[in-house]
Amino acid sequence: MDIALPIAAIDRIVDLALEEDAARGDVTTRLTVGPGRLGVAHAAAREELAVAGLGVFARVFARVDSSIEVQRLAAEGAWVAAGARLATVRGRVAPILAGERVALNILQRMCGIASTTRRFVEAAARGGRARVCDTRKTTPGLRLLERYAVRCGGGHNHREDLCSGVLIKDNHLAACGGVRPAVLAAKAGAPHPLRIEVEVTTLAELDEALAAGADAVLLDNMDPGTMTEAVRRAAGHALVEASGGVRLETVEAIARTGVDVISVGALTHSARAADIALDLEP
Amino acid sequence: MDIALPIAAIDRIVDLALEEDAARGDVTTRLTVGPGRLGVAHAAAREELAVAGLGVFARVFARVDSSIEVQRLAAEGAWVAAGARLATVRGRVAPILAGERVALNILQRMCGIASTTRRFVEAAARGGRARVCDTRKTTPGLRLLERYAVRCGGGHNHREDLCSGVLIKDNHLAACGGVRPAVLAAKAGAPHPLRIEVEVTTLAELDEALAAGADAVLLDNMDPGTMTEAVRRAAGHALVEASGGVRLETVEAIARTGVDVISVGALTHSARAADIALDLEP
Amino acid sequence: MDIALPIAAIDRIVDLALEEDAARGDVTTRLTVGPGRLGVAHAAAREELAVAGLGVFARVFARVDSSIEVQRLAAEGAWVAAGARLATVRGRVAPILAGERVALNILQRMCGIASTTRRFVEAAARGGRARVCDTRKTTPGLRLLERYAVRCGGGHNHREDLCSGVLIKDNHLAACGGVRPAVLAAKAGAPHPLRIEVEVTTLAELDEALAAGADAVLLDNMDPGTMTEAVRRAAGHALVEASGGVRLETVEAIARTGVDVISVGALTHSARAADIALDLEP
Amino acid sequence: MDIALPIAAIDRIVDLALEEDAARGDVTTRLTVGPGRLGVAHAAAREELAVAGLGVFARVFARVDSSIEVQRLAAEGAWVAAGARLATVRGRVAPILAGERVALNILQRMCGIASTTRRFVEAAARGGRARVCDTRKTTPGLRLLERYAVRCGGGHNHREDLCSGVLIKDNHLAACGGVRPAVLAAKAGAPHPLRIEVEVTTLAELDEALAAGADAVLLDNMDPGTMTEAVRRAAGHALVEASGGVRLETVEAIARTGVDVISVGALTHSARAADIALDLEP
Amino acid sequence: MDIALPIAAIDRIVDLALEEDAARGDVTTRLTVGPGRLGVAHAAAREELAVAGLGVFARVFARVDSSIEVQRLAAEGAWVAAGARLATVRGRVAPILAGERVALNILQRMCGIASTTRRFVEAAARGGRARVCDTRKTTPGLRLLERYAVRCGGGHNHREDLCSGVLIKDNHLAACGGVRPAVLAAKAGAPHPLRIEVEVTTLAELDEALAAGADAVLLDNMDPGTMTEAVRRAAGHALVEASGGVRLETVEAIARTGVDVISVGALTHSARAADIALDLEP
Amino acid sequence: MDIALPIAAIDRIVDLALEEDAARGDVTTRLTVGPGRLGVAHAAAREELAVAGLGVFARVFARVDSSIEVQRLAAEGAWVAAGARLATVRGRVAPILAGERVALNILQRMCGIASTTRRFVEAAARGGRARVCDTRKTTPGLRLLERYAVRCGGGHNHREDLCSGVLIKDNHLAACGGVRPAVLAAKAGAPHPLRIEVEVTTLAELDEALAAGADAVLLDNMDPGTMTEAVRRAAGHALVEASGGVRLETVEAIARTGVDVISVGALTHSARAADIALDLEP
Repeated sequence: MDIALPIAAIDRIVDLALEEDAARGDVTTRLTVGPGRLGVAHAAAREELAVAGLGVFARVFARVDSSIEVQRLAAEGAWVAAGARLATVRGRVAPILAGERVALNILQRMCGIASTTRRFVEAAARGGRARVCDTRKTTPGLRLLERYAVRCGGGHNHREDLCSGVLIKDNHLAACGGVRPAVLAAKAGAPHPLRIEVEVTTLAELDEALAAGADAVLLDNMDPGTMTEAVRRAAGHALVEASGGVRLETVEAIARTGVDVISVGALTHSARAADIALDLEP
Repeated sequence: MDIALPIAAIDRIVDLALEEDAARGDVTTRLTVGPGRLGVAHAAAREELAVAGLGVFARVFARVDSSIEVQRLAAEGAWVAAGARLATVRGRVAPILAGERVALNILQRMCGIASTTRRFVEAAARGGRARVCDTRKTTPGLRLLERYAVRCGGGHNHREDLCSGVLIKDNHLAACGGVRPAVLAAKAGAPHPLRIEVEVTTLAELDEALAAGADAVLLDNMDPGTMTEAVRRAAGHALVEASGGVRLETVEAIARTGVDVISVGALTHSARAADIALDLEP
Repeated sequence: MDIALPIAAIDRIVDLALEEDAARGDVTTRLTVGPGRLGVAHAAAREELAVAGLGVFARVFARVDSSIEVQRLAAEGAWVAAGARLATVRGRVAPILAGERVALNILQRMCGIASTTRRFVEAAARGGRARVCDTRKTTPGLRLLERYAVRCGGGHNHREDLCSGVLIKDNHLAACGGVRPAVLAAKAGAPHPLRIEVEVTTLAELDEALAAGADAVLLDNMDPGTMTEAVRRAAGHALVEASGGVRLETVEAIARTGVDVISVGALTHSARAADIALDLEP
Repeated sequence: MDIALPIAAIDRIVDLALEEDAARGDVTTRLTVGPGRLGVAHAAAREELAVAGLGVFARVFARVDSSIEVQRLAAEGAWVAAGARLATVRGRVAPILAGERVALNILQRMCGIASTTRRFVEAAARGGRARVCDTRKTTPGLRLLERYAVRCGGGHNHREDLCSGVLIKDNHLAACGGVRPAVLAAKAGAPHPLRIEVEVTTLAELDEALAAGADAVLLDNMDPGTMTEAVRRAAGHALVEASGGVRLETVEAIARTGVDVISVGALTHSARAADIALDLEP
Repeated sequence: MDIALPIAAIDRIVDLALEEDAARGDVTTRLTVGPGRLGVAHAAAREELAVAGLGVFARVFARVDSSIEVQRLAAEGAWVAAGARLATVRGRVAPILAGERVALNILQRMCGIASTTRRFVEAAARGGRARVCDTRKTTPGLRLLERYAVRCGGGHNHREDLCSGVLIKDNHLAACGGVRPAVLAAKAGAPHPLRIEVEVTTLAELDEALAAGADAVLLDNMDPGTMTEAVRRAAGHALVEASGGVRLETVEAIARTGVDVISVGALTHSARAADIALDLEP
Repeated sequence: MDIALPIAAIDRIVDLALEEDAARGDVTTRLTVGPGRLGVAHAAAREELAVAGLGVFARVFARVDSSIEVQRLAAEGAWVAAGARLATVRGRVAPILAGERVALNILQRMCGIASTTRRFVEAAARGGRARVCDTRKTTPGLRLLERYAVRCGGGHNHREDLCSGVLIKDNHLAACGGVRPAVLAAKAGAPHPLRIEVEVTTLAELDEALAAGADAVLLDNMDPGTMTEAVRRAAGHALVEASGGVRLETVEAIARTGVDVISVGALTHSARAADIALDLEP
């Protein structure tokens, strides 16, 4: 397994999903499939997609029956055509059927996110050099997988959680009395491995953030013209992130403003599951 | 909490999500918001949606800080307009901010599923009396919430998991030697509280299933004409479920065939998060 | 492991039992048995019994020390005589002794249930074709194992839990206003893979249940004569289950009434542990 | 809750049992009982029994719905007649029904063990001053509850687990080279709060144990005459425990030999569930 | 509880510690203290110390018995004299005694770390403006508490874990081919909320790090003279952290070099437990 | 793994520590070390120390990546010189780096405790035959490891927890009305495998304890002269334990009084981490 997907974390997700679906056994399979029957199944893309999650897919079957073998037939991050085989699963048919739905549910979601990300990344690249980046709007319990899938799609990750990044948002500003005191408080107390980023909605706030020594600024729902000016003012002083309702249709124009990062909640909160099937050889 | 959402199961989901996002504390909030500061925030719909999950939304805040109070302002299952207030959150600002993202991530997903379901249910109702029903294509770890959200949207649930329903699919048929022996094996061994359902792809298979005494048949990707004939043959003998790639555009025509159940994977595997915000009072 | 005993569920039970007995080490064995000493032990029946649980027995030792090997010498479900060897355990003596009690505690309980079940099944078979079936009166935490042991003894399973079957009992009837409204409510809302079963205490209630379209009826503590009439009325319309204080002495007569299912709480709530020993070779 | 039943340990057992039976909701109750309906239920003994476990019984309902109130009507350890009310449960009917089976399964088992223990204790008292004591032959996962139930029935506890007592058995003797070296090794290394107990099968072994300085001896399956002599020899030097297939019919004679402790596996491994019902007020 | 000590994380630590010490009950207390007996106990410093962890101390008792009340008598971070009362505990004596050792073990460790930190912070302040900072050399399982205790002592935190900071160490440099490629790879791929810090052992490596655009440099075991030059070169370009075997005797001199951060493993890996007692009122 | 370190208990500690430090991946290593790169690392003592915990050290790497191999180069309990190699780690570099800190944190603590214990044991041996023994003042969550390390250093263990030993302390005496009633109550109710130990502060209390039949007495903070007299009075009747603020400088004199056991909280609550490094081969 990838060093970015620690085995204990993967197992916790996989076991939870199996518990939900198959904890007490697969009654249909028990009654209709002989326990010793062997078989071979193929996971195949039913539409073009970016691959992400084959290691987790394989792990599902390993947790159901450690004697099942999964051969991976596509590289993580690859863009494959409809019909492409992604993996072959060999072993006892009964546990393959018991794990099928869980394995597919995970793989389809991860490939869906990777594919969506790739489309955003390609659109942004037509506009400039900005990173496309995820947000904390991930599926509860699946953040690790979804951040990995974003990277498979060519995207970058924002902070992992509330503790691995400082991002001062409007509510913090209100509670702290404005941009300057908030940035200064954060600089004084935050662990030094973390940059201090602050959300701004106007150029005046941007100037205040830069003056207080912010390391990064998040431009919230600004129009492209204002963004361009913000990028100009921040140059050499702070990273610039654009955020707020970014869509596939608008990401190129945002990239064209010269921002460093474009964060897109839709990468994870509204990705469609990719269409993938597991076909047992007759 | 609803008897259909057992508190231990809800807490497991909520705690997992909080652990992922806020387990080690919210460093930004710690540095910029006084620990004793009190405030009021409102959850509001930013688009029209079907409400589902306000109990879980409230539970998130209760797990962060038991002194936070959440007042629910909309009924589960209600269809509300853009701008409608869904809930008010009162208490210490710091834990409200620490729980905000998790609470919204869950609520947005649940309302998204309920809203999608409602659209399918309304379309199906124009065609006939068929139930719209979910599938096992749910988000790993969130099945309980998603099945509940489907009901909030007016839909029905299919089997909970591999143990609470018998559904003989193509792979089981291949392994068991056909419809008749599979149905007979299932009838002989399955717990009597479960109906025996079998997937069929042709009218010949349907006849075989009915002759063997199946309680329900799943018509897999049949065209409407064949479905209509299947319904006619099964009448009085078995429930009829239609399944396979059902879309909002096709569900009315399927309902018109007279099937009893239409199962739709897209209710859960591809629902878009509803747009909901939490606004702190200034 | 059997597809009906998912490895994660088994491990949870085994680990819990080991934690309770041996979590912090076996102080006697540490002080008196050399850590490298190898040995062979035999599990033997000390009375005639039906075998159930050798896979779980083996798993206990595997969790204590993965290098221990367990050879199974009897088939699950087999009826063996006193003195029969059930399994041979080979490996380091220290962990064999550390796991012995837990392995036996589980195996003795499972064989005890299987043996009790077999006696009920044989008695019932003398009366008719009725299934002997378990109930939800299982040992907290061990339901999966106990249901499996019932099947090893030739019995059938009732619903797994409160979610995988609909059984309307007297308290539901009281709360819902009677048999008819309760059955109708259940039919309208229950997942279609589940049959609707309702408890009745009189023939009048039975008629009401049948008229409302119940799929199964549970006859609660009826005398054989009334049961026979109930079977006649329900024939072709609903499954008939007999329940309530069934004993080994009465089960044949109940079966003779023609009921489809006889459910027996005593299979699990009062089964005596079978007498099994683990003898280390000198 | 009693200091002997730590709340975290109780909750782990209760939650596991609820998860097994009601984790995903009670579908029958959801469909037939209004969520707001209130009611009162009474737990009543259907046979005479020794009370044990009302605190755990109450905790089950508290975990399902914290607003349910349970009033205890009998003291732990009390011997009550058939028909006696043990507790009254007040609150929402739906969660009462969802928790009923789990609460009864636990209470019936605990009262069954307490009642069996009391019968052994009374029989032993007719023979002498020996303690009646449990063994490690407890139900996997429920040892804490079962040891407590033994005390409620007037019995005593043996060691909690493999780490809280030193008991050198035949297999240890074989591995260590006999009684003397085993006892000396244990005395040299065991934590000083633990007595050194050794199993002996002959008077010669007994003498060897006493000479080596054993603090207690377990007489394994000795006849009463030999036991009496063993008691005489050990007097003033070591505690004497009798063990091995003790039955209600034989315990008085064993006590008459003058042993200090009689350990009885059947207290826990084969106790019948006591007959207790929960009746909802109409 | 402080927003920096999320309740779920605290409970996990507290419950683990209680499970280890008191999971199966306190046999001595059960036998010698009446269950209803009430009492008052005082936690008092037996030496001068910096206070940290009274919230966790209180939580231990709350988990043993929710009716125990703990009154905090000193502020977190305060420096108190020997003899000072830190808290008063009121409630049932039995659970107070059952929780005493765990509560003290945690409090003594946290106060020990806070006190050690304060001594380092005061020594460093005599040399300059450098932060004193912890490391990842924390006690397994207690990192959250120990980082908090460091802050109570006036120190700062380094990265929380391997995911919330980028720190390129010698082994990474060896594997990546040197400072420049390693820093460039990190800048290209790391989440933008994280600074890129690199360990350097010579001024040449420092120059390479600065040229590659590192945000921070860790000077590993440099002598003060070299450190001073390093600070001069990095000024305005990168944060400078000193690390490696820092002792209370050397920290002032290191601070005098002008570094921004001094990280000290001994704050957590070798702190002595503070001397604190819990005295029950007679 | 040693029978005294059950694998499930070790894994719980190891997994908790890894979760804390590396649960979400090692971002630095992911960006700078190729996933397939192989390497060899050596754990070496940087000071003289007693070895304890190499099995746990190895287990850390096994949990990160099961293909890593750890070769142990020193025996548990051995006293090694500065510079000695303790173990060699071979495998993929990325997971070795991800597990390094956790493996060292555990090993350093265990060797630190073993080394401290050995120094106490050697000092005590100069005074007499007394055991040096740990207390319950262990690190929350790590008691099993710390007790094992004490044994590696030549020490003995006191009771494991509140349930595996009876130790009547001052607070129990106060609540129970004195030494005599407390000892009698404990003798009447405690499991017979446990000795009854009572804390005494005067010779009068000692006499009372002996008269009541205590099996062991703990002399709390007595001066050596009084201890010597206490030993004389208890000889042949009860074990004698000395306790209270024992230091390396005082342990010999205490041993000289003839006590059987000297318990030392500082073995675990204030042990310094041993200095051990993991060096990757260039």
